[in-house]
Amino acid sequence: MDFREQLSKLDGLDLSGLFNEDFLLTWDKSEDEIRGVLAVADALRALRENNKSARIFDSGLGISLFRDNSTRTRFSFASAVNLLGLELMDFDEGKSQVAHGETVRETANMISFMADVVGIRDDMYIGKGHTYMAEFAQYVKEGHAAGVLEQRPTLVNLQCDIDHPTQSTADLLHLIHEFGGLENLRGKKLAMTWAYSPSYGKPLSVPQGMIGLMTRFGMDVTLAHPQGYDVMELTRDVASRNAAVSGGSFRVTNSMEDAFEGADIVCPKSWAPYAAMEERTELYGNGDSDGIKALEKRLLAQNAEHQDWTTTEEMMARTKDGKALYMHPLPADITGTSCAHGEVETSVFDRYRDPMYKQASNKPYSIASMIFLQKVKDPIAKLEELWNRHQPRWQG
Amino acid sequence: MDFREQLSKLDGLDLSGLFNEDFLLTWDKSEDEIRGVLAVADALRALRENNKSARIFDSGLGISLFRDNSTRTRFSFASAVNLLGLELMDFDEGKSQVAHGETVRETANMISFMADVVGIRDDMYIGKGHTYMAEFAQYVKEGHAAGVLEQRPTLVNLQCDIDHPTQSTADLLHLIHEFGGLENLRGKKLAMTWAYSPSYGKPLSVPQGMIGLMTRFGMDVTLAHPQGYDVMELTRDVASRNAAVSGGSFRVTNSMEDAFEGADIVCPKSWAPYAAMEERTELYGNGDSDGIKALEKRLLAQNAEHQDWTTTEEMMARTKDGKALYMHPLPADITGTSCAHGEVETSVFDRYRDPMYKQASNKPYSIASMIFLQKVKDPIAKLEELWNRHQPRWQG
Amino acid sequence: MDFREQLSKLDGLDLSGLFNEDFLLTWDKSEDEIRGVLAVADALRALRENNKSARIFDSGLGISLFRDNSTRTRFSFASAVNLLGLELMDFDEGKSQVAHGETVRETANMISFMADVVGIRDDMYIGKGHTYMAEFAQYVKEGHAAGVLEQRPTLVNLQCDIDHPTQSTADLLHLIHEFGGLENLRGKKLAMTWAYSPSYGKPLSVPQGMIGLMTRFGMDVTLAHPQGYDVMELTRDVASRNAAVSGGSFRVTNSMEDAFEGADIVCPKSWAPYAAMEERTELYGNGDSDGIKALEKRLLAQNAEHQDWTTTEEMMARTKDGKALYMHPLPADITGTSCAHGEVETSVFDRYRDPMYKQASNKPYSIASMIFLQKVKDPIAKLEELWNRHQPRWQG
Repeated sequence: MDFREQLSKLDGLDLSGLFNEDFLLTWDKSEDEIRGVLAVADALRALRENNKSARIFDSGLGISLFRDNSTRTRFSFASAVNLLGLELMDFDEGKSQVAHGETVRETANMISFMADVVGIRDDMYIGKGHTYMAEFAQYVKEGHAAGVLEQRPTLVNLQCDIDHPTQSTADLLHLIHEFGGLENLRGKKLAMTWAYSPSYGKPLSVPQGMIGLMTRFGMDVTLAHPQGYDVMELTRDVASRNAAVSGGSFRVTNSMEDAFEGADIVCPKSWAPYAAMEERTELYGNGDSDGIKALEKRLLAQNAEHQDWTTTEEMMARTKDGKALYMHPLPADITGTSCAHGEVETSVFDRYRDPMYKQASNKPYSIASMIFLQKVKDPIAKLEELWNRHQPRWQG
Repeated sequence: MDFREQLSKLDGLDLSGLFNEDFLLTWDKSEDEIRGVLAVADALRALRENNKSARIFDSGLGISLFRDNSTRTRFSFASAVNLLGLELMDFDEGKSQVAHGETVRETANMISFMADVVGIRDDMYIGKGHTYMAEFAQYVKEGHAAGVLEQRPTLVNLQCDIDHPTQSTADLLHLIHEFGGLENLRGKKLAMTWAYSPSYGKPLSVPQGMIGLMTRFGMDVTLAHPQGYDVMELTRDVASRNAAVSGGSFRVTNSMEDAFEGADIVCPKSWAPYAAMEERTELYGNGDSDGIKALEKRLLAQNAEHQDWTTTEEMMARTKDGKALYMHPLPADITGTSCAHGEVETSVFDRYRDPMYKQASNKPYSIASMIFLQKVKDPIAKLEELWNRHQPRWQG
Repeated sequence: MDFREQLSKLDGLDLSGLFNEDFLLTWDKSEDEIRGVLAVADALRALRENNKSARIFDSGLGISLFRDNSTRTRFSFASAVNLLGLELMDFDEGKSQVAHGETVRETANMISFMADVVGIRDDMYIGKGHTYMAEFAQYVKEGHAAGVLEQRPTLVNLQCDIDHPTQSTADLLHLIHEFGGLENLRGKKLAMTWAYSPSYGKPLSVPQGMIGLMTRFGMDVTLAHPQGYDVMELTRDVASRNAAVSGGSFRVTNSMEDAFEGADIVCPKSWAPYAAMEERTELYGNGDSDGIKALEKRLLAQNAEHQDWTTTEEMMARTKDGKALYMHPLPADITGTSCAHGEVETSVFDRYRDPMYKQASNKPYSIASMIFLQKVKDPIAKLEELWNRHQPRWQG
């Protein structure tokens, strides 16, 4: 696609609400804004593929704050900030013990004197991650208003307890690429289903992020899981509202077969029951390690009752022409490859490996796009300038 | 303030002694040189506030070598080197075990092949930190002379056992900003006082750095602490000499009330007694963990005898018009916020929070200024060039 | 030397085989290609010494993947990628647990979306390191072919179980500098000998890399070690073949004295017996910690039988005019300095310290050279352009 044609997707969109603001939840953003994130992500990719520098910063820091270890998200964020010209600065919690209230306020300001963007991942405890991010954002906003911080470091949610916007927009970009455009997704059937895994406690933010975003563009979204594996009610409500507005649909079923039936897109993935995660959060809060062990045992036993929730060739055969697009945010538990019995059969996984890797390759761009739109007032003009300034990224 | 007016503070100063040299102790530097560091720090801030790039390096490494964990200093140093165009490279001691003599010589050279600056923090053991830095500096100087190192990596003391020059110059910048100029500090009363903390063993370099620098510009500096909490004699001598030269004064008292009486500026902060730190250093040297535990117990008991050394509203009321500028290098032990009984009451701390955050915001600039003056032969000309070259830091 | 004269060493060399390819083993590369790496390394140094930027990247990542801790190699790689304009991104295995097969494929792709180069060090287990690198290289090549990766991240072997090309080329650069040119090395006698160390298990890749490279330019190379300290047969075969082609010679002896006799260059260094390393690899594979302890004890006892293999002044006196160039990749076990009895006497080590530090200073350049030749199609033209574009590295 021609670059100017690509930029035309931005024509007429009101993106002013993204400028100088945080990106925490997709459903806080307008449809224009989501379309803007998608189009800018592809434009940044086009710049890089054509060996044009996308640097809009000559210096400055992009801070990553991870509450748990993560290679992939870490590299995605590092790639995104480097693409735009910022240097990654990792704020290692293990070394510094971020806590609550006053301490968050102080630390947030102390690390942000020259920070343009802060990427936070905090997905472990229900009721904590989003709250922490909102608190952090408020403190640096106040720090900027008080003249402490020269610039307002904007936040990008790299995964919280509620939403996972950089994943879901990367996934949506994947669908746009696979189906030839956002408009082609209207009426498509997407099955976001639970799948069995021999481990437990995987975050809810992936299915929640999916149903919160994919319902906005006229798709028919089914959320499927065994009884007791509910996601947060808040996100189901968001999905229902979205579907009503976009002319799509949203429903919940307790049958994987039902969800797969005639689906154009399937995303089978393990997650923990919301109620169990709430319980775990409380146990951790009380330092009740016996309780945690007991819970773990109970949850693994509960998982084991649903080993039939797995992506076999038979299950895939139920989908539209047996050829639904299989998606997974990776890493997956692959039966016969990484475990004895997991989320997906090896033959299914292998057939979709390249598409899934491409799906993952969108993430640095969806992150970079969010940052770009937070930092650039007139994105169309700036992207055109970047295209025309003939500054190669790599002088090969 | 107009940028050219800002630069005029540099007119006539002899800064040649800073070029290509290390910055270890403020009292090794001339008054001109200190004035230069202060004026360049503000000029670098003006560049950034006006979205002008301050990069003087296209590539190169700034190495941080921390003997203990430190988020704030780490981020300040990272910000400073990034501002000037260097990439941060953290030399993690935990991974590499820097030792003595031959090993220091070899490591210093091996990590410095492309290092333009090295920032070292080594404040834990009395008699060690400064010695280590001086040794390191000597080895890389020799390495450069022998043709091993293409450039001489200059050192910045990010806190040693004796002095804390990047903190004290940041603090002095704060006073300059608050009182409207260095000349307005003449005759101002500054109280550097000990304060009670429920933890122990806080470094002496903060009070020592303060009395060693603040006495140079005509202020009346009082050092106050309970009996037995003496700082190093060397630094008291420096303070006395400075005061005699600058027309200010320096005295030591054992009463917090006395020090606060009529003060324009108060800096109440906990530190460990020098003699106890000497003892601890020896115990660590002998690997005497029982001795260390016993010492800790004794020191905490000793601290607890002085819980009245705390910054209450009553104490603040004794200061000039009850409105002295309260300072703290952060983090502080705040009574009722971060501990049951600490260095300062919540209401006092909260009233001065924004000013203290601004105080802290000077640190990246004071570090960057030291590096800039180590690396640039004609700072006025270069700063003018940076102002006029119209290279935005951020293309928003 | 004039820069244009320096570049003339590249005239007529066919370097096309290096472009967009990995650098894993020196003996997989043609003589032209090795000459190219050497000449470009010196050209990059000349650029930097003349304060000219060697950046060929405006942004992009250089990934380091270390299987064990390493300060020196880490800094060398960081220096090299920074010199060329890439940002270092450390892939910390401790945090991410790279494993085999599918996991390697996935991780390799997931961290490489914006990676231009990956430096891997994996020297611990016989039969693993090179295999891992080749596997990694294959996976990212496939990822690039499948459209997953926009660019092919090329690999640089920072030390494997077989070869250590960045070390051996840095060592060869040292000899070129010391003897005034590659052509002057013809007929020189080089002794690569084992030396006693109180520790055990040092990698074989250093001697193997040396005999694999130094035999290519007409030198007479002797490998000396006590019985039972054999290196991999594969690398002895390479050395013999090289010597036959280059008109030099290669032989193995079990006498240190024999090897030193009349030598122009000596490189005495400890390593572990190949057979013992094979045994250790198997023990680790089986998780047999008792077996590992027993092996360690046995190996240390075996080492101790050969304490006479040490670089004394008497031993040095046997060399050509008693003045052979002593080399060591550092750090060395120095008798009386870093241990009671080690690889070399203090007086010998001290006399050659500056040369050895210079030897080490070549490593960032040999790494940068390999990357440069992987990334630049017409190296002569690009180097001339870099020389002439007047972009200072440091605006002092």
